[in-house]
Amino acid sequence: MPSGANRQVPTQEELAIWRAHIETFEIVRSRIEARLQQDSQLSSGDYRILLALSEAEGRTLRSSELATHLEWERSRVSGQLGRMEKRGLVRREPCPEDARGQNVVLTDPGARAFRASTLPHLRAIKDVFVDALTPEQLASLGEAATATRSHLGLEHRS
Amino acid sequence: MPSGANRQVPTQEELAIWRAHIETFEIVRSRIEARLQQDSQLSSGDYRILLALSEAEGRTLRSSELATHLEWERSRVSGQLGRMEKRGLVRREPCPEDARGQNVVLTDPGARAFRASTLPHLRAIKDVFVDALTPEQLASLGEAATATRSHLGLEHRS
Repeated sequence: MPSGANRQVPTQEELAIWRAHIETFEIVRSRIEARLQQDSQLSSGDYRILLALSEAEGRTLRSSELATHLEWERSRVSGQLGRMEKRGLVRREPCPEDARGQNVVLTDPGARAFRASTLPHLRAIKDVFVDALTPEQLASLGEAATATRSHLGLEHRS
Repeated sequence: MPSGANRQVPTQEELAIWRAHIETFEIVRSRIEARLQQDSQLSSGDYRILLALSEAEGRTLRSSELATHLEWERSRVSGQLGRMEKRGLVRREPCPEDARGQNVVLTDPGARAFRASTLPHLRAIKDVFVDALTPEQLASLGEAATATRSHLGLEHRS
């Protein structure tokens, strides 16, 4: 394995950190998602879309904006929105400015479901993620996320 | 929102870090997975199972051990193994010690596919994850993963 500045692959130590990181936070995520499903009957996809819409102007986003924001394929967004529309959580409307576009609107029941899910979801994040870490460890995770977003050319998140 | 020692929900700052962390590393993961699929025609599920088997004694694990290791439902493991068996990557056999158990064995083609995927996958991990971070940031991520595993009662990973 080559080493030094032109090294193209991780060291054993870097790789061990990658594996510990990805495996651990996959479990964190799946535990928090299981609680969301159990407490609020929402999948993580439901939740992410409800969250994005609840923060959007007029509770409305273009479905293409949702796809970009989630980094999902458009077919996946479309399937997800179809299921949410059947449950009355969102409504899809033609986009006035673009005949080929589609607006996704948060419905009142969707907004209520999102609000009702908030407190138990926050508790799960606290129990599973925040309480595991010291304030310094938490701050380092924030810095690592910022550095990674910048490296990948993603927009800055506040 | 309550505050102080008995606080049950994250602060705004803790929550912002959670969101940045989960969203950023979801993108990291999906970019690395897309490269794995493109370079080696393996999904991340395929890869995790091939990796676990390649490190197991006799290249064999019980399917229940795989489910525990991956924290997947048994039905998901079973569906995944069925697809991999069709492609010749693994073989399922009755377990000699347990009539209800099943052994999963890495086949030679599975071992070859895993080996061939390694170098491009390591390059993707380097490009997308390692190169984003300073050595200090990487070390902090490792510490955070260790602290989280301990908090969640997971076994220590080397």
